[in-house]
Amino acid sequence: MSLATPLRTPAEPAAPAGSATMRRNNLALVLRHLQHQGPRSRADIVVETRLSKATVSSLVAELVDRGLVREGALRQEGAIGRPARILEVDGSRVGALGLEVNVDYIAVFGRDLGGQILVRRRVAFDAMNATPDEALSRLAVMTREALAEMTRRGAVPAGITVAIPGLIDVARGHVLLAPNLGWREVPVAERLAAELGAGIPVRVDNDANLSALAEFREGSAAGTADLVYLTGEVGVGGGVIVGGRLLRGPDGFAGEVGHMSVDPGGIECGCGRRGCWETKVGLAALVRLATPDQGYAAPGPVPDPEVRLAGILDMAAAGDQPTHLAFAEVGRWLGLGCSILVNLFNPHVLVLGGYFARVAQFVVPTAQAELDRLVLAGQAGMCRIEASTLGFEAAVRGGCGVAIERVLDDPTSVPPVTVVQSGIR
Amino acid sequence: MSLATPLRTPAEPAAPAGSATMRRNNLALVLRHLQHQGPRSRADIVVETRLSKATVSSLVAELVDRGLVREGALRQEGAIGRPARILEVDGSRVGALGLEVNVDYIAVFGRDLGGQILVRRRVAFDAMNATPDEALSRLAVMTREALAEMTRRGAVPAGITVAIPGLIDVARGHVLLAPNLGWREVPVAERLAAELGAGIPVRVDNDANLSALAEFREGSAAGTADLVYLTGEVGVGGGVIVGGRLLRGPDGFAGEVGHMSVDPGGIECGCGRRGCWETKVGLAALVRLATPDQGYAAPGPVPDPEVRLAGILDMAAAGDQPTHLAFAEVGRWLGLGCSILVNLFNPHVLVLGGYFARVAQFVVPTAQAELDRLVLAGQAGMCRIEASTLGFEAAVRGGCGVAIERVLDDPTSVPPVTVVQSGIR
Repeated sequence: MSLATPLRTPAEPAAPAGSATMRRNNLALVLRHLQHQGPRSRADIVVETRLSKATVSSLVAELVDRGLVREGALRQEGAIGRPARILEVDGSRVGALGLEVNVDYIAVFGRDLGGQILVRRRVAFDAMNATPDEALSRLAVMTREALAEMTRRGAVPAGITVAIPGLIDVARGHVLLAPNLGWREVPVAERLAAELGAGIPVRVDNDANLSALAEFREGSAAGTADLVYLTGEVGVGGGVIVGGRLLRGPDGFAGEVGHMSVDPGGIECGCGRRGCWETKVGLAALVRLATPDQGYAAPGPVPDPEVRLAGILDMAAAGDQPTHLAFAEVGRWLGLGCSILVNLFNPHVLVLGGYFARVAQFVVPTAQAELDRLVLAGQAGMCRIEASTLGFEAAVRGGCGVAIERVLDDPTSVPPVTVVQSGIR
Repeated sequence: MSLATPLRTPAEPAAPAGSATMRRNNLALVLRHLQHQGPRSRADIVVETRLSKATVSSLVAELVDRGLVREGALRQEGAIGRPARILEVDGSRVGALGLEVNVDYIAVFGRDLGGQILVRRRVAFDAMNATPDEALSRLAVMTREALAEMTRRGAVPAGITVAIPGLIDVARGHVLLAPNLGWREVPVAERLAAELGAGIPVRVDNDANLSALAEFREGSAAGTADLVYLTGEVGVGGGVIVGGRLLRGPDGFAGEVGHMSVDPGGIECGCGRRGCWETKVGLAALVRLATPDQGYAAPGPVPDPEVRLAGILDMAAAGDQPTHLAFAEVGRWLGLGCSILVNLFNPHVLVLGGYFARVAQFVVPTAQAELDRLVLAGQAGMCRIEASTLGFEAAVRGGCGVAIERVLDDPTSVPPVTVVQSGIR
């Protein structure tokens, strides 16, 4: 090492930003400033952002044009001078959608920038017995309906994110592998954009990653900068928030918790390997343990998982001992896998989604005890396991949030509305 | 969620920086600028940093005073005007130390800001049979000798980092738990600072974390933004670089790979749990597998690990079949544990340090095959396992690097040298 080899990766001087880039960044700066600091005048923004008066005027005009900011009441500034017009974020004119294709349903969730929920729907869909084409056609129909509903309620749709339980090439919007859907190499973003033909940006992301973002933003552990979200269905997915940011890894494959090898001598997983965590804690494992006499012993897809889960919950509520033993077994393996995650990521909360949330009262006590026993840091590294309160909506809420973030990062992605503005500019 | 609950953790406007803070930041800015961009004139710095001419003059004067920057040759700028004095980082006047206490040795490594190695020593020390007090006294003696050596070679020691194989409270410089040293709650930074009485800042950090930083900066995979470093001795430690930054976790406990539960029915670990990864791949596991007839079957400390390892390597070199089978078994478990890390972190390189590096030729092929087989992302998530080339110096090099970074971040931590400067200011 010498000075020619810097001690840290050098912070290269940023390439000179083109004026379009600079304009976009400044629009985002003013919009975020209004969002975080609340309603204020142009003069306040000039002082607080150190942008020039002329620049702020022009940026505000554009944000108003794009329906992102509105002018409110007049406020007298100090004792003398003219009253100033107060500006605020207009949350009602722009919206975004989150969609999800999962093993047995398709869901959609839309809201506007102000947080108002505009669309919210979940329909049964048997993805395992449908081709990707059939699934995408169904998704396109639901998306069109949702966009129409959003438009009818006065919000311009500015972005769409589709959640998929699998490995995703986020840059291309491409599903590389979704074992529990039976998908491999499906160009979801491209296909959906072509079906919609509407010029709305479509992104695709892993369902657990999006759910983790939703938990971080608006779940019961919102604001916990280090948390892990786990979703249990037939498959088990994970999303990891590290220091307030989603951990993706350089190729987007981080957080693949379901296929951690926890029992090398165990049964075969749907992925073809043995002893993956999901063979121990996925819904199929619970069904197998709780209803061994019903002839369902193989790993892989569970017929009618919802129906079976409901039956198991009924048995547990009735105090059935074998059912409670099955939950305890799942709870122990859940705690063991969680201990690996806590040893590696040191999160403060593990949020359980999917079917885990529905069976939380029966598995969390065992899982928490096992976790506490197995974490090296012991008390000092304490991590709480809790059930998600977002239910089946975690992924679509996360996806919708990501699409809204994109609008806030790039206000020029919203088309100008050019309606007559009330008040004086 | 409403606009009152921002969609992302708001970037709070930075608290107004006091003039001392601003001065320190500007000193660091100019020093890093010279380091990354190379020798240049005050006028160049004014243009490139957008600081005022008077500010740059004053900052440079202080950096020269503190022995961090020196004035070099005169350079004619353009056709007219006076020639300008070229400035460059003076790497020779300030240095830092990295120290390490491990199971069977204490090591020290020092270099100056320019990368010149000034001190480098490793002595046998039986930490398991010494009290923390004895270890710290020995460490203090070695530190004093190293500081004297550094001073004799003309460098002012500006910082010390001590590497310890255990859970560290980095903020307090406190070892919480170091199972393989038999330490619990040892205030290392405080004790060492008291012994030295020299006002040099002492930090304490986990050995594998520091090694990971060294690998990222100067190892064979230097610059790989996502890498995991593994160190194998009796214990197995890990350091994780995510996006070019060390993953610490909110309490500093991230990356505790050695106690991942990989075989719940396995043998008891030194930590009291069963089936931890280090019971499968630590040096004790290899010794147990390779020399089952030598009466060493229990987990925990291995008597004379270096001697035993040398013997095992000799047997392997001689083509001994049972030794090769032992390596294959360790290799398989190494690959299995690595697959968990790759599924979770999606790194591009896993760097093996400690005894792993010495046995790499015998274990890496098996480990790599097992890893490739077990990673969910398959080819797309490919990760290379390779042996560290930093040997036993990884942790002390990393520690020294951290101490040097602190100097670059805060040049005021170096006392002014007030020697007569050659040339004109």
